[in-house]
Amino acid sequence: MLLDESQLPETVSYIRIEHYTEAVAAIRDMKTRAFGQLLTVLYGLALTARKASSGDGLMADIREASDALKRSRPTFAFARYTDLVIGWTQDAVQKEPDTAADTVVGHIQALLGTIKAMRLKRAQLAASLFEDGDIILTHCNTSGELLLTARICRDQGKRLVFYATETRPYLQGRLTAWEMSQDGFDVTLIPDNRAVSILSSGRCTKVITGADRVALNGDIVNKTGTSQLALLAREFGVPFYAFVQEPGKTATGEDVPIEFRAKEEVTIYKGNTVYPYGTEAFYPAFDMTPHGYIAKLVTFGKILSPADLPAGWNIQP
Amino acid sequence: MLLDESQLPETVSYIRIEHYTEAVAAIRDMKTRAFGQLLTVLYGLALTARKASSGDGLMADIREASDALKRSRPTFAFARYTDLVIGWTQDAVQKEPDTAADTVVGHIQALLGTIKAMRLKRAQLAASLFEDGDIILTHCNTSGELLLTARICRDQGKRLVFYATETRPYLQGRLTAWEMSQDGFDVTLIPDNRAVSILSSGRCTKVITGADRVALNGDIVNKTGTSQLALLAREFGVPFYAFVQEPGKTATGEDVPIEFRAKEEVTIYKGNTVYPYGTEAFYPAFDMTPHGYIAKLVTFGKILSPADLPAGWNIQP
Repeated sequence: MLLDESQLPETVSYIRIEHYTEAVAAIRDMKTRAFGQLLTVLYGLALTARKASSGDGLMADIREASDALKRSRPTFAFARYTDLVIGWTQDAVQKEPDTAADTVVGHIQALLGTIKAMRLKRAQLAASLFEDGDIILTHCNTSGELLLTARICRDQGKRLVFYATETRPYLQGRLTAWEMSQDGFDVTLIPDNRAVSILSSGRCTKVITGADRVALNGDIVNKTGTSQLALLAREFGVPFYAFVQEPGKTATGEDVPIEFRAKEEVTIYKGNTVYPYGTEAFYPAFDMTPHGYIAKLVTFGKILSPADLPAGWNIQP
Repeated sequence: MLLDESQLPETVSYIRIEHYTEAVAAIRDMKTRAFGQLLTVLYGLALTARKASSGDGLMADIREASDALKRSRPTFAFARYTDLVIGWTQDAVQKEPDTAADTVVGHIQALLGTIKAMRLKRAQLAASLFEDGDIILTHCNTSGELLLTARICRDQGKRLVFYATETRPYLQGRLTAWEMSQDGFDVTLIPDNRAVSILSSGRCTKVITGADRVALNGDIVNKTGTSQLALLAREFGVPFYAFVQEPGKTATGEDVPIEFRAKEEVTIYKGNTVYPYGTEAFYPAFDMTPHGYIAKLVTFGKILSPADLPAGWNIQP
């Protein structure tokens, strides 16, 4: 069951996924995004393993599902995980073909447990960056990780105030406002074009966002508008932090292809056409923030300065 | 008859105004904005003059209407014009009370003609800043003046391409897209958070916006998001221009009170609640752009550099 983020906050509804093709469609149609995509990929592969009739069929099915999931979005960031599942499947089919499907599902479940623990660790690291009284601006939605960070800070007696950009055109700020306010945190929305007002007035003390991709040089690729926010933060001396994963083989942010989405995602909102018929719109879904704008990268294992990245920071904790 | 800009581009509809209180309401409710407000103020005062029963009544009515119009929005920029009308009324009532109303209406009509000629002159000056092949980014809506400029450039054989920000939360970018595309110009919308992508890629060669207010030191106050755009333009070496009026007695941009509008203008869009119930939103309707970010001010009489403003630039052409 997949939470349909596109319906939040008006409707809390779930999509039943019974085949990996439905997982591909949910990712492509942005029913889920960011970290939710990884869960959808892993559960989609577990479903595929469960349905396989034989060892040989299992290998072919897992390859087919992995390929389709990888093609779901151009910035797909989870190839490392689909490769892991393919490796487990090869091993299991070779060693004990009769129980291979169960073995693969077991591996995936264990991985999900590890990921949960890694995310908790990363939130604890982020919490160490925040102090009592901080006023934190965020962009888009970090799939619950900023909320997790805020809860840890609350347990530590730190009071935080949050500002969230709307994040046009998909308005993921509504997800941030929804999850933070549900849990009693002080969160205020701002139009994307108001960031300078929060930053220039000294109202905001820190900026933090997620990152769909990070490169070996510390560049990040994240939701459209992140680079603008980082640039403005630097201009006004406010530190900019990002939650990141491992960079894999990506050397710089320039190496990540940027996904361009349909103009209708800008010109139509929930069935209402906002702009004149035929209006052109320019909507790259992501942008690249150079590492020079970033004060700290919060990885699963430690906090790193992009200006001084140690060799081997690509290795998982 | 007032064009209801809040209904564009879906519906082209007009509001019938028969009393200055309806003019006040139309301005307060943003049925019209920017230059449209000046027309509404002047026609509202002409209506008031037409309805006055006597010379004494005329003076009181014009004062009452002027005061109410001035209070319609905190950034009200047209006090110079309401003061002019009050002066004409005082004179006319003193000299020829019986025909005073007609005299005042005549003055207002002449002023409207002068303003039309001044706007044409300002558009011609702006056109001189643009070259064949320029790619121009704009924000909010200049009440037809950028369109006028584009037409002059077209007549001069200069081909221009336009990008328009959406300008959340009121989406005035839809007005720019509407008026430019109606006239066959190449215009593409971008979410406000995408400006950096247009500016950093060398795609955009010039930025131009209107300005609700300008100060004697060259600071401008304009639609929320303008200062962010100017800052980003400076970062990437793209010149930023603004159409301005006369500064009057405003010394710096800091002297202009900023209007804060209701959070519902952010959280509700055409009756759809976009955000969770009770979500706080921060919506200053304007912001101040320091003169250091501005390459040229386009006045009604000449093009000025804010870095080098001549004495007496406050005098009308």
